[in-house]
Amino acid sequence: MKILVTGFDPFGDDKINPAIEAVKKLPDKIAGADIVKVEIPTIFGKCAEVTHEAIVKEKPDYVLSIGQAGGRFGLTPERVAINFDDGRIKDNAGYQPLNTPIHEDGQNAYFTELPVKAMAKAIRKVGLPSSVSTTAGTYVCNHIMYQVQYMIDKEFHDLKAGFMHIPFLPEQVTTRPNTAALSLNDDVRGITAAIEAIVEMDGKKDIESVEGSIA
Amino acid sequence: MKILVTGFDPFGDDKINPAIEAVKKLPDKIAGADIVKVEIPTIFGKCAEVTHEAIVKEKPDYVLSIGQAGGRFGLTPERVAINFDDGRIKDNAGYQPLNTPIHEDGQNAYFTELPVKAMAKAIRKVGLPSSVSTTAGTYVCNHIMYQVQYMIDKEFHDLKAGFMHIPFLPEQVTTRPNTAALSLNDDVRGITAAIEAIVEMDGKKDIESVEGSIA
Amino acid sequence: MKILVTGFDPFGDDKINPAIEAVKKLPDKIAGADIVKVEIPTIFGKCAEVTHEAIVKEKPDYVLSIGQAGGRFGLTPERVAINFDDGRIKDNAGYQPLNTPIHEDGQNAYFTELPVKAMAKAIRKVGLPSSVSTTAGTYVCNHIMYQVQYMIDKEFHDLKAGFMHIPFLPEQVTTRPNTAALSLNDDVRGITAAIEAIVEMDGKKDIESVEGSIA
Amino acid sequence: MKILVTGFDPFGDDKINPAIEAVKKLPDKIAGADIVKVEIPTIFGKCAEVTHEAIVKEKPDYVLSIGQAGGRFGLTPERVAINFDDGRIKDNAGYQPLNTPIHEDGQNAYFTELPVKAMAKAIRKVGLPSSVSTTAGTYVCNHIMYQVQYMIDKEFHDLKAGFMHIPFLPEQVTTRPNTAALSLNDDVRGITAAIEAIVEMDGKKDIESVEGSIA
Repeated sequence: MKILVTGFDPFGDDKINPAIEAVKKLPDKIAGADIVKVEIPTIFGKCAEVTHEAIVKEKPDYVLSIGQAGGRFGLTPERVAINFDDGRIKDNAGYQPLNTPIHEDGQNAYFTELPVKAMAKAIRKVGLPSSVSTTAGTYVCNHIMYQVQYMIDKEFHDLKAGFMHIPFLPEQVTTRPNTAALSLNDDVRGITAAIEAIVEMDGKKDIESVEGSIA
Repeated sequence: MKILVTGFDPFGDDKINPAIEAVKKLPDKIAGADIVKVEIPTIFGKCAEVTHEAIVKEKPDYVLSIGQAGGRFGLTPERVAINFDDGRIKDNAGYQPLNTPIHEDGQNAYFTELPVKAMAKAIRKVGLPSSVSTTAGTYVCNHIMYQVQYMIDKEFHDLKAGFMHIPFLPEQVTTRPNTAALSLNDDVRGITAAIEAIVEMDGKKDIESVEGSIA
Repeated sequence: MKILVTGFDPFGDDKINPAIEAVKKLPDKIAGADIVKVEIPTIFGKCAEVTHEAIVKEKPDYVLSIGQAGGRFGLTPERVAINFDDGRIKDNAGYQPLNTPIHEDGQNAYFTELPVKAMAKAIRKVGLPSSVSTTAGTYVCNHIMYQVQYMIDKEFHDLKAGFMHIPFLPEQVTTRPNTAALSLNDDVRGITAAIEAIVEMDGKKDIESVEGSIA
Repeated sequence: MKILVTGFDPFGDDKINPAIEAVKKLPDKIAGADIVKVEIPTIFGKCAEVTHEAIVKEKPDYVLSIGQAGGRFGLTPERVAINFDDGRIKDNAGYQPLNTPIHEDGQNAYFTELPVKAMAKAIRKVGLPSSVSTTAGTYVCNHIMYQVQYMIDKEFHDLKAGFMHIPFLPEQVTTRPNTAALSLNDDVRGITAAIEAIVEMDGKKDIESVEGSIA
């Protein structure tokens, strides 16, 4: 089995992005699966092109994209990506889409094929906070998650894919009062546990644990 | 113009639900539109039946559903509803769906037809915290929002609809440390401002303000 | 019985301070006690002079000072004031003390004579969030609480005094994401309930409810 | 120079306490100072006895006590300890004091002799969140901080002492939603940085940086 793991480069006022830093530190094999790592730019459109190229070249069974969610407390596998770009800030190419569909001929949303509940449970089992999220936002994170699903819909029908958000690093919150963080080492441990769950659940339905949110 | 406003009854450990309390206190006319109020039960399926009945009877131009989102800080118009029921707790009939699509023949998600950015802006203009949300959760709130959109898709093609979450009331947080609340009077003012924005924006595209979230 | 209630004027970037707004709206009699209201400036030293003048003139039995604690979720009666000025921002006269004792001949700290647990309980009883706080910070709020206690220590031996923080108003958090607020009307209700508790507990020891914080 | 570092054992529902775990992992020498480590029980009174014994035996120049502050986001050196025990829960001996002075003949509060601003700055410099706190609570953490200051007041006049709170470990928040954590390795790095600041500032006044809190 081959798993392509992507990570975004730094954006906004931050000089570092835990996503690509953690991805770079992943082992090359996890639970027997080959891990291929790709850095993608925090740029609408372009990040999808780079990922598409890697999928064509590597022919992975799974794509797991990693992105930073400043302010979140744990690692949060995402359930769904929506057909909507709406930037709170500009991307690294200076582009800030507002109220914009990603693909006119795409579905309103795509659900991930990843076993998000099993992933969250596996992450908690290694002693890290995790819960399933039902929003990847409206910036490049939701964008890449949607784009890869759109590629599955239109082109790579056997591919399975998904997205996971990770919190700030401690060094990113020294000037952000009352903001949670997780160490890079814990990010690596958490992503590894999530990938182990993906491998173990391959071909099976996700577990039916209680994870839902009220609101 | 006629606007049907629904509010859920209390659920979980709470004896009161700000949603239905605020809906009951709305004026009968807002910005010239007739306001029809309906209490709906916190029960999967049943809440949609009651709403469907009211739509058939009242033939409204808009449906705005209101629900409680404990822990949120402001009034949050929802952008999107997903085809997914996943209860963290049982509903008022004792039913707790897990990993369950709402309608096999429905779309993965539906975007609201309401001008959510204009609504959030109007609420802030009357001095209350508000932002657009991209997740209505996976409980009855997302359920009713999805169900009404499904009705639009299949039956009431001219109807426009959406959902707004409101925080706990102060009396609900006396035993919940460090949890935000908003008074019932402020809920009524905020919902009224949101409805005024709906009326004012009728027939127009939503504004293109910066509201997006990173994560 | 006569109770002097002071409230600070606006400071920092805010055009309004819930403290003085709420104090102004208090009734002139609460539980039989006469309520005398005084606006004090957000200025180190000067706020104490104005309060001292009012005490000399009004000869109150109690002084209750009210101040804004942006970010807190409820009304928080303060247990203790410390002999330490340390401004995160300048006061309204442009003065920003750092690492500075308030009075060289004052005690390190003074405990309030007010029944803070009974006050918090009374506030919760009227449906508002409240807990006892053990830090009034290091800005003008702690300063005035310390100064009045110092006056009791040196001059007004029979006076009883204390301080209560209140959260932002909703209108103050429209541009502050994820920050709690309470309405002015709720502030007035909460302060009134606290004063009723002060009157009722006059001459008695505070209740022994569980209110302590771990950290 | 010799520095005695104490850490509490687990309490409440937790099977682990980051305080003693981090203390155990400290190097035996930091910035040339000898580090002596002592585990103390989460028991009012008893924790002070154990610390007193260690002071008599080791004759340290400094005592730094470490405790867990669940819910805090960073490492927080404490400025002040108050003469007040008020347990939210029982201690490990089943004792839960309420509204109780620690020593009838002690001062209302004692300020730490440690350079808390320099410590917080040093911790941030190694990439970890930190700020000075003005409340150590009313449980065993404030208790031990007060007790050691009382010993300085009455017995060990040349000793300097203080307290620092550290957040939950990640493994402690897997079942506590939206609660911040820091890894054990980061705790060790942060405490080490704080001790380096203590050694470097020995004999000097604390820095005058802006650290104060409004509320």
